[in-house]
Amino acid sequence: MDLGHTERLLPVLAAVKAMITDEIAPLDEEFLSEVSIGDRWTFTPRQTEILEGLKAKAKERGLWNFWDTFRDGPQLNTVEYAYLAEEMGKSHLAAEVFNCNAPDTGNMEVFARYGTDAMKEQWLKPLMAGRIRSAYLMTEPDIASSDATNIAMRCERDGDSYVLNGQKWWATGAGDPRCAVHIVMVRTAYEGPKHQQHSMIVVPADTHGITKLRPMEVYGHDDAPHGHMHFRYDDVRVPAENMLLGEGRGFEIAQGRLGPGRIHHCMRAIGQAEKALQLMCERSLAREAFGKPLAQLGENFDIIAKARMDIEQARLLCLKAAWMMDQGDKRAAAPWISQIKVVAPQIALDITDKAVQMYGAAGVSQDTPLARQWTHLRTLRLADGPDAVHRRQVARAELARYSVGQNSS
Amino acid sequence: MDLGHTERLLPVLAAVKAMITDEIAPLDEEFLSEVSIGDRWTFTPRQTEILEGLKAKAKERGLWNFWDTFRDGPQLNTVEYAYLAEEMGKSHLAAEVFNCNAPDTGNMEVFARYGTDAMKEQWLKPLMAGRIRSAYLMTEPDIASSDATNIAMRCERDGDSYVLNGQKWWATGAGDPRCAVHIVMVRTAYEGPKHQQHSMIVVPADTHGITKLRPMEVYGHDDAPHGHMHFRYDDVRVPAENMLLGEGRGFEIAQGRLGPGRIHHCMRAIGQAEKALQLMCERSLAREAFGKPLAQLGENFDIIAKARMDIEQARLLCLKAAWMMDQGDKRAAAPWISQIKVVAPQIALDITDKAVQMYGAAGVSQDTPLARQWTHLRTLRLADGPDAVHRRQVARAELARYSVGQNSS
Amino acid sequence: MDLGHTERLLPVLAAVKAMITDEIAPLDEEFLSEVSIGDRWTFTPRQTEILEGLKAKAKERGLWNFWDTFRDGPQLNTVEYAYLAEEMGKSHLAAEVFNCNAPDTGNMEVFARYGTDAMKEQWLKPLMAGRIRSAYLMTEPDIASSDATNIAMRCERDGDSYVLNGQKWWATGAGDPRCAVHIVMVRTAYEGPKHQQHSMIVVPADTHGITKLRPMEVYGHDDAPHGHMHFRYDDVRVPAENMLLGEGRGFEIAQGRLGPGRIHHCMRAIGQAEKALQLMCERSLAREAFGKPLAQLGENFDIIAKARMDIEQARLLCLKAAWMMDQGDKRAAAPWISQIKVVAPQIALDITDKAVQMYGAAGVSQDTPLARQWTHLRTLRLADGPDAVHRRQVARAELARYSVGQNSS
Amino acid sequence: MDLGHTERLLPVLAAVKAMITDEIAPLDEEFLSEVSIGDRWTFTPRQTEILEGLKAKAKERGLWNFWDTFRDGPQLNTVEYAYLAEEMGKSHLAAEVFNCNAPDTGNMEVFARYGTDAMKEQWLKPLMAGRIRSAYLMTEPDIASSDATNIAMRCERDGDSYVLNGQKWWATGAGDPRCAVHIVMVRTAYEGPKHQQHSMIVVPADTHGITKLRPMEVYGHDDAPHGHMHFRYDDVRVPAENMLLGEGRGFEIAQGRLGPGRIHHCMRAIGQAEKALQLMCERSLAREAFGKPLAQLGENFDIIAKARMDIEQARLLCLKAAWMMDQGDKRAAAPWISQIKVVAPQIALDITDKAVQMYGAAGVSQDTPLARQWTHLRTLRLADGPDAVHRRQVARAELARYSVGQNSS
Repeated sequence: MDLGHTERLLPVLAAVKAMITDEIAPLDEEFLSEVSIGDRWTFTPRQTEILEGLKAKAKERGLWNFWDTFRDGPQLNTVEYAYLAEEMGKSHLAAEVFNCNAPDTGNMEVFARYGTDAMKEQWLKPLMAGRIRSAYLMTEPDIASSDATNIAMRCERDGDSYVLNGQKWWATGAGDPRCAVHIVMVRTAYEGPKHQQHSMIVVPADTHGITKLRPMEVYGHDDAPHGHMHFRYDDVRVPAENMLLGEGRGFEIAQGRLGPGRIHHCMRAIGQAEKALQLMCERSLAREAFGKPLAQLGENFDIIAKARMDIEQARLLCLKAAWMMDQGDKRAAAPWISQIKVVAPQIALDITDKAVQMYGAAGVSQDTPLARQWTHLRTLRLADGPDAVHRRQVARAELARYSVGQNSS
Repeated sequence: MDLGHTERLLPVLAAVKAMITDEIAPLDEEFLSEVSIGDRWTFTPRQTEILEGLKAKAKERGLWNFWDTFRDGPQLNTVEYAYLAEEMGKSHLAAEVFNCNAPDTGNMEVFARYGTDAMKEQWLKPLMAGRIRSAYLMTEPDIASSDATNIAMRCERDGDSYVLNGQKWWATGAGDPRCAVHIVMVRTAYEGPKHQQHSMIVVPADTHGITKLRPMEVYGHDDAPHGHMHFRYDDVRVPAENMLLGEGRGFEIAQGRLGPGRIHHCMRAIGQAEKALQLMCERSLAREAFGKPLAQLGENFDIIAKARMDIEQARLLCLKAAWMMDQGDKRAAAPWISQIKVVAPQIALDITDKAVQMYGAAGVSQDTPLARQWTHLRTLRLADGPDAVHRRQVARAELARYSVGQNSS
Repeated sequence: MDLGHTERLLPVLAAVKAMITDEIAPLDEEFLSEVSIGDRWTFTPRQTEILEGLKAKAKERGLWNFWDTFRDGPQLNTVEYAYLAEEMGKSHLAAEVFNCNAPDTGNMEVFARYGTDAMKEQWLKPLMAGRIRSAYLMTEPDIASSDATNIAMRCERDGDSYVLNGQKWWATGAGDPRCAVHIVMVRTAYEGPKHQQHSMIVVPADTHGITKLRPMEVYGHDDAPHGHMHFRYDDVRVPAENMLLGEGRGFEIAQGRLGPGRIHHCMRAIGQAEKALQLMCERSLAREAFGKPLAQLGENFDIIAKARMDIEQARLLCLKAAWMMDQGDKRAAAPWISQIKVVAPQIALDITDKAVQMYGAAGVSQDTPLARQWTHLRTLRLADGPDAVHRRQVARAELARYSVGQNSS
Repeated sequence: MDLGHTERLLPVLAAVKAMITDEIAPLDEEFLSEVSIGDRWTFTPRQTEILEGLKAKAKERGLWNFWDTFRDGPQLNTVEYAYLAEEMGKSHLAAEVFNCNAPDTGNMEVFARYGTDAMKEQWLKPLMAGRIRSAYLMTEPDIASSDATNIAMRCERDGDSYVLNGQKWWATGAGDPRCAVHIVMVRTAYEGPKHQQHSMIVVPADTHGITKLRPMEVYGHDDAPHGHMHFRYDDVRVPAENMLLGEGRGFEIAQGRLGPGRIHHCMRAIGQAEKALQLMCERSLAREAFGKPLAQLGENFDIIAKARMDIEQARLLCLKAAWMMDQGDKRAAAPWISQIKVVAPQIALDITDKAVQMYGAAGVSQDTPLARQWTHLRTLRLADGPDAVHRRQVARAELARYSVGQNSS
């Protein structure tokens, strides 16, 4: 069970790290500050210049599409990729610069595994090239999406088409003017096994009948121009061949899609936790009160030690989950994915909050990246399933070792 | 030790509660939504109409200036006032409608206790009438304000004037166009006892040399038009008689000012905790997943029970602290104030966060008041001294029972 | 809502406090050390001398049977009594010295409220005089007693008698050679409303058919000679008139019995928490490491502050629960009792554990009372209902404010 | 960084696991129950029969002395050994059966690395053969041993001898009648660098002047016949050649000794955590209340999930620390050892406590191994340095990355 840096990873990791530190992170704040200029939902020329400039460099250096099937050159396994994701977590722009950002990686995965040749040509190629962006429409406002069998958007066959009606929200990235395609979870049956009533279907973003109701805010942030959109679909009609794999296979696709994405999310969270710990240490040494550096006051040693211990444990758990994925048995890997989904965002939030407190009023303000980081991390405790649902999965897997059937419900 | 509702409080409390529920809270969202119209730092006509309309009604009903010396009719003690503050915490506008909002109540307190007759005429009267607003300038960006002896703004005597130079930030309410006066903590000596080197001085908000550098943001919110301002003072000159009490008495005034203010803050936090618990209960009964209302899933019973137990305990502790204040011995009351300053914001934050989680993605969004409430509450763990400083005070008071002098540092 | 010391309480409290500090606590260790001499389940002459000597003094001073209906002289209400219970928690022997120990107070309460005149003569009088002791047999080994409707000991009418069969364990105090009577919860019906199938019946401790199977241990302690006994009842026959109130009224009696007892338990736990905090403070000032008293190292200020804040809050909550009891509405008071039942033992355990850690290896040893105190407190999270059951009650009471019937289960 | 099961480990692990499950664990309770027969500090014939019988079998199967230098056949590295230690944690007798128990392994390590040939002949050989036992005398009652530079036992050169005076306590295993030798940390200098004033010296257990003052108790348990002894040394004289390595090198030896020992302790703690989780799951499925298995009530899913997540993280952290040890750089490994020393006992305690709660009153009693396990684990938060000292080490290592010298104290 090798959870360390492999030989083949080392040069890639070094290159990614250097590019983030030296070229990407220094542009984060400028990119973000441009958002308030003009229409929040377009890119300013400077934003385009920054982002496309960095992407071009990354591509040129082969630091692009690290995830297995998409990669030219040596394929990285999930453990190796995880180390890269951690680094990307330390900068706002980094994940997209390497074409490794959510939800596009997950959507590329879907097209690569389950898409037709036509879909690969139309959507996968430009996604892999970073020319278009995509969204994933799962969650709905009127039902508890934590139990995904509740998903209700109607999708009815009508001749050679499917017709979709309903609402979706929290479509991350759908505010981006480059977002060209939606992958949508819909309900196609009202009978039969619970996990075979839903389907996944591809909908071009400019299809007639799609209305952007509003951007959703996260603790007051709209995350423009990326955004989290609330859509209404009114009689949205797409060709029948846009159905992925066939009716009733939505959950099968969702499972395949979410595993690696959760590992990336979690490792980026670890990266953010490392960044918060670094900021906390720097502050605690630089700032004085009561005649001493903060580091030496009260429980600050204990806070720093706990942060280090939490990070090491969470990282090892993520790496183990990644290793489980690499063994190829999805069912065996699932409870490990649930474990990290609970652990990583929680410790990253906690450490970020402790860092905020160490910075005092500066910590809640625009003067450090901590407050923005916290709000972003906070959503991870809900996205792709709230903590409680994942703990439930972990517990059920545990109890299943002792009993068959008894621990249902 | 009567911590309950007194006879004289009951009708006032009922009137306040009813006015908040029926008249004030229903206008909160409309008032807030006006902020994004035009210049964020002025009031729209509709905002003025809402706020002044409510204030007029409150005044007319005698629900105005509840705090002791300012009140016509029966004086309420701190315990009684605390119950009113709790109710005001449940609505964005309520505290100001009753002229009970921070930092104005604290500043009125300062003028009433320590101000000259001229100050009372010029500042206290219009503050009590709700015609002007005020700010309190304490914290500075370049020093650890948690140890207030670090405060560095220079204030030098020059003939009949004092001249002030330096920066202040987090001047809450100073963005408000009605804000007419600053009470400023400054350094007037560099020798002598540590707690006698600072002073408090009154500065009209339109004095030459004051620059608004920027509004500070709280997790991305600028809280316009109230705001938290970052100021630079360049050779700001005020008459010598603007000095409160005399040079070197800044900490004496600060202590007198902060006690009641902390109780109000804490009781408003309790009110917010109650509101979050209510929202949590309603959601947990209304929403279903896995075939059951959320209330019956996982640890939700335990979360709700813990919230109730935390609130009851924190409220009783605040009431006890208020009762200690009413006994008149400030030194004895001080560690109790420190206790509630740590406890109340923490439990209110925790309950609000749990409520966010119960609401799922809606919880972090603009669709509930929870996310905004959380960011507001988060600052209370820093404002008027970070938690660590208050825990330190509580510990030192405790250890002082066993030893004299040993527990210094 | 007066939660303070009343005039009439003050002299009693002072006398109780002084007697504990000066006369009772100094004999605790000697009394306990006698347990290992000879048969653990009898009293040594010295033990009898200590205990009866102290009891005689207490009686003589009128510090005896403080609980309302039993008291000569002014009756104390529950709030007042609570303050006395807190003091008694600080010494091993104190509660019994004042005839205020569990389970005897609860049992006296049962006899006084629900007993026949004959029972009062036979059992209540000698209990009030401290001449005999009693036990309360509720919990059973084979069922989850947390759900008391599971209780299974059979009790069948046979002519003028009842015949009891089954097992009971954790009969606290039943190891005491002076224990003369059992009050036993039994099942008398298998149909009808769930809470009317059980009954409470009085069984003399020397009745034929009662076997002491073994003493139960608490983290290795048997708490001899008081003890927690495991009994088997084989055809234990008692006269029909020993049935309390009538068949099916067991839960009604249990509720009446447990309320005050829980408050006493919780206030004694608060007393133990105070004692642990005192020991912690003394140690942290007296012991040095790394060149400083422990108090000034790491998070010790924070630990001490948290202990103080936890104690104050828990005490106020207990006092509020006691005040609710004194208002006379048992149904309204019930969730408050559940709240303190969760809170008080938990914070007392936590503070005791923190004190253990501050003492290092001495803390887990026989050299401080902390380890014994911890094991005793640990059982309070289970006795009279485990935490989870009480949290469940609190949550259900909370949710009932928003909905009728929905929150069942 | 291979943290998994190696090929060479697999058969050994399987054999150890099988022997524990099938042969050792079933005899644990019988062995323990014999302690109360006769003198607690000798072995009963049955105890000897059980222990020596098992040891003979283990030796015969080559399951003996797994730790590197002592092992015939393939040497196991620290990671591999760690997996064995985890299994041994699940049974009371297992560690000694395989000759892998504390403090003997640590002492063997000391003799092997730092002992003279004569010491190896006299003490190491019989220890490796399991014929004698040993003790390690470090902690003292009168000083804060958490700061080991406080250690005060005097050791003065007198001709060809050293003469020792002072007290030592918590000498684990020193109650065992087979305990033949003490390794003792003493003070030999009062000047010079702080970490060069102490020395380690070998003292035969029967040397004149050694008095067993008493057995120390752990939450009331004396852990006879193994025990934790409190010794007084009065003019205890040993030959000068008993000094290990030379005067002033005590800390150097202590560091070398404690690293592996801490990993073993921590992995045994993980084993106990696994056992507690297993018991918790079994109980939660088997026991019913309110019409459901406990597993489905309240937060029990969450408790089980958290236990699983805590265990996986703590185990991975221990394995990483073991791997760091195997890289050979002790200074680099030190903060990792400190991390696991904090994490592993804490999560094992927490899970054991949760299991106790799930069992109700049975959990605190002699009917499950949980209460005994908890008290044993509790000492691990103090032994070999209390948590606070290890957190301090972790924090200092962290801060050292940002600053040189600033974070002293």
